[in-house]
Amino acid sequence: MGKTDPGRFFEDYRVGEEIVHATPRTVTEGDRALYTALYPSRFALASSDEFARACGLPRAPLDDLAAFHVVFGKTVPDISLNAVANLGYAEGRFLLPVYPGDTLSTVSEVIGLRENSNGRTGVVWVRSTGYNQRAEAVIRYCRWVMVKKRDAASPAPAPVVPDLAGAVPAGDLVVPAGLDFSGYDAPLAGSAHFWDDYATGERIDHVDGVMLEEAEHMMATRLWQNTARVHFDPAARAGQPRLIYGGHIISLARGLSFNGLGNAQLVAAINGGAHTAPCFAGDTVYAWSEVLDKAETATPSVGALRLRLVAVKNRPAQDFPLRAPDGKHAEGVVLDFDYWVLMPRR
Amino acid sequence: MGKTDPGRFFEDYRVGEEIVHATPRTVTEGDRALYTALYPSRFALASSDEFARACGLPRAPLDDLAAFHVVFGKTVPDISLNAVANLGYAEGRFLLPVYPGDTLSTVSEVIGLRENSNGRTGVVWVRSTGYNQRAEAVIRYCRWVMVKKRDAASPAPAPVVPDLAGAVPAGDLVVPAGLDFSGYDAPLAGSAHFWDDYATGERIDHVDGVMLEEAEHMMATRLWQNTARVHFDPAARAGQPRLIYGGHIISLARGLSFNGLGNAQLVAAINGGAHTAPCFAGDTVYAWSEVLDKAETATPSVGALRLRLVAVKNRPAQDFPLRAPDGKHAEGVVLDFDYWVLMPRR
Amino acid sequence: MGKTDPGRFFEDYRVGEEIVHATPRTVTEGDRALYTALYPSRFALASSDEFARACGLPRAPLDDLAAFHVVFGKTVPDISLNAVANLGYAEGRFLLPVYPGDTLSTVSEVIGLRENSNGRTGVVWVRSTGYNQRAEAVIRYCRWVMVKKRDAASPAPAPVVPDLAGAVPAGDLVVPAGLDFSGYDAPLAGSAHFWDDYATGERIDHVDGVMLEEAEHMMATRLWQNTARVHFDPAARAGQPRLIYGGHIISLARGLSFNGLGNAQLVAAINGGAHTAPCFAGDTVYAWSEVLDKAETATPSVGALRLRLVAVKNRPAQDFPLRAPDGKHAEGVVLDFDYWVLMPRR
Repeated sequence: MGKTDPGRFFEDYRVGEEIVHATPRTVTEGDRALYTALYPSRFALASSDEFARACGLPRAPLDDLAAFHVVFGKTVPDISLNAVANLGYAEGRFLLPVYPGDTLSTVSEVIGLRENSNGRTGVVWVRSTGYNQRAEAVIRYCRWVMVKKRDAASPAPAPVVPDLAGAVPAGDLVVPAGLDFSGYDAPLAGSAHFWDDYATGERIDHVDGVMLEEAEHMMATRLWQNTARVHFDPAARAGQPRLIYGGHIISLARGLSFNGLGNAQLVAAINGGAHTAPCFAGDTVYAWSEVLDKAETATPSVGALRLRLVAVKNRPAQDFPLRAPDGKHAEGVVLDFDYWVLMPRR
Repeated sequence: MGKTDPGRFFEDYRVGEEIVHATPRTVTEGDRALYTALYPSRFALASSDEFARACGLPRAPLDDLAAFHVVFGKTVPDISLNAVANLGYAEGRFLLPVYPGDTLSTVSEVIGLRENSNGRTGVVWVRSTGYNQRAEAVIRYCRWVMVKKRDAASPAPAPVVPDLAGAVPAGDLVVPAGLDFSGYDAPLAGSAHFWDDYATGERIDHVDGVMLEEAEHMMATRLWQNTARVHFDPAARAGQPRLIYGGHIISLARGLSFNGLGNAQLVAAINGGAHTAPCFAGDTVYAWSEVLDKAETATPSVGALRLRLVAVKNRPAQDFPLRAPDGKHAEGVVLDFDYWVLMPRR
Repeated sequence: MGKTDPGRFFEDYRVGEEIVHATPRTVTEGDRALYTALYPSRFALASSDEFARACGLPRAPLDDLAAFHVVFGKTVPDISLNAVANLGYAEGRFLLPVYPGDTLSTVSEVIGLRENSNGRTGVVWVRSTGYNQRAEAVIRYCRWVMVKKRDAASPAPAPVVPDLAGAVPAGDLVVPAGLDFSGYDAPLAGSAHFWDDYATGERIDHVDGVMLEEAEHMMATRLWQNTARVHFDPAARAGQPRLIYGGHIISLARGLSFNGLGNAQLVAAINGGAHTAPCFAGDTVYAWSEVLDKAETATPSVGALRLRLVAVKNRPAQDFPLRAPDGKHAEGVVLDFDYWVLMPRR
């Protein structure tokens, strides 16, 4: 077993440590085509070079979540190979658009450690940053995972729990340089609803649903070079069905949200997110959104919406399922995701 | 429901109206690779830049049907979201090759309307045109669909039924500028049979068959940004299996037709087509062709064949199944497609 | 049936004959993305243009096995359409890296023929060479297949059995021009183990497993334009499940081998290989490797390892299953593959 990677255990992390992740990856038009084939995404900015140029960008950026999955996937062998649970995300920001031809790599800093009272696991907080080939940060986010200890008898480190923001402040959102929605072509984008038309508290059922397939979630997960065994090998789950990568559900729900949020062209931040129940092939996923907040940006034609994106399985979303009477997530809710998007203003 | 797209009903169309469809799409080498992965296509012209250059084109065009699906997919949210049935195609012409890097968008003109006698549905005829980024028309075709009325009580419009040609006249076929088959490399193309070798009335069994998979038809359909719910969500069909997009069967049958029509390099026109029975995952599809007509073109090295392409499921095609004794399409026939191809002449 | 390809029978081959295969194919970034989606490959050199440039190459080459499958796929209609069994590979060498934009075509020379004693089949040996658009040989290998005779009564040709090397001599391995691992970034590559760290006889369990899916193996096989019916149509196998293309298992096992051989960046030669049992959708594949030999190359920073790569199905590989007591391959072993890789030296 000397040459294979056993993954890191809780004892292997030190606060302040920097982890350089393998494998650098040049993203291409091939990734864009596969993303389009895997998710029902119709946002015009990531679909058309011409539309993107009319909005002030040099060409169509890669879908923001595709870039996120590439950056995230690199962290898996070092952060979550021995993870028991993916506990949360915070302070995720999209700092620069990613274009085909860019080469992405990821570095993480350990920003928190706390052993659990059972002595067998601990929580690890990391801040991960994806860089392009010019060493520019393109995406930065925090996540925390519960990781097994190698040895229950090993001493607990001094607990360090980072103070993470509940949401990215609107003032910290980055509008890509040059982005200008002042000449926005709404019919071509496929939605007549601008930033001005959404109200805080408004809820939208995205209506459409998609049944999940093994081949699709595995192809997606490998595309991000996330090779965590639970997604591919039933034996890794004692013969239970393969667990679908949570990011597959995020992208699917974001794609479904086009129907109602067709002008939400860019993801600017991830405030938080919970994979509240697992998904498997054969499940059918629906989604709904709630407008949590609205903000102007420094670019007059660009507004920001803070959205809650909820995915549910095997039941429609028209009644906006979220919580059960006991305050826990309701039966069927599989994703509760809090993020900022950028939209055109009138 | 104010933000989601309910689709158009019969009352929402006016003859002469122009509909600009979302979402513009830059097609790329990623689309070509996925098309190759999804269909058993081996036509050399769309496979090799070098072969295409030897035939006078600047590089390998995207497969004609891939371009057709992109153009068609854009019309779905506006034309067929509430369609009860896709009734037919006519007057489809391929006007310009589509190359990776081109950005396609689609505009439709409503050319006919006729309410059905039941008062609950009507037929809508549209002429749809796909344009590239230089506003050049690349594909134009007519189709007609049966669409639900929003309200059975709403008055019927004056019926307008367009006069559509039974087939595109050979003289209207467009041979791409520069195309020259005079130095055609038949061994490299994989077929020794030139235009001269086919006779009107000749029938060809394409022998090979492919069993359909959910992941494949859904990836294909999403690639064309056709997100009609019936293809993805069994609940949209009262729990029945997902309906496979008819264009998936056209491309599959065209791919199978390589075995017997290996030099039919380009699709020049779609004269008509009927999806005579639905297909589902688990069905195995076979195909056969009949030569309906032959024509010379203005380019001496290029001939045109008018072909009937018939796809059948769950039975071989060696006996050329087409009609039942009652004149209807025979059991197992799923596609009856009439089109023109361009081939090298000796 | 005159237009469809019946494939060649044993009588149709002549020793010394050269067969030009259809269909030339321009490989692209789309192929790279699909390869990444289909196989758990994380080797940095084929993943990142930047990493490849830091190793002296102009950009990231296409995965060597992807190039092999393209070259191999072209031979199928002429060599193995009527093959009863794929008997072996030998003397495979990777002569030049293949880059996106290259156009590949394949030519085979018949180098051996021997009728079997049953009079109904014979063995055909071919040496196949893949060329790029500059007519440079990129891959050359031998394989032999058992092919049906058209007519058992036809006379046997004079037997010619080529003398094939048991392994490519280390001195014949080609190190790509410019390749230089002297500044190799091991953390970025994801493995701390250099050529120097492997010992002949060492065995490595690659731990991870992948359950096979119909949609995945069919998409892979079509991507290489290998349309042999047994992979797509259960009726071609009397209703038995579709047979998975053996190359799919080679690529899967090679991808799994990253976990333990993460610096085995390039495949330099295929010494031999046997598909010892068929694979079907639903099987779960694991892999292990044995170091068979080590060699220096003319490039000081580059070492060569000769590896045995064994894939097994539906059982883990931790006990390195290979042979049964009777000397045959053990139950569950599906691939026994012998190849050379190039790795960085310390």
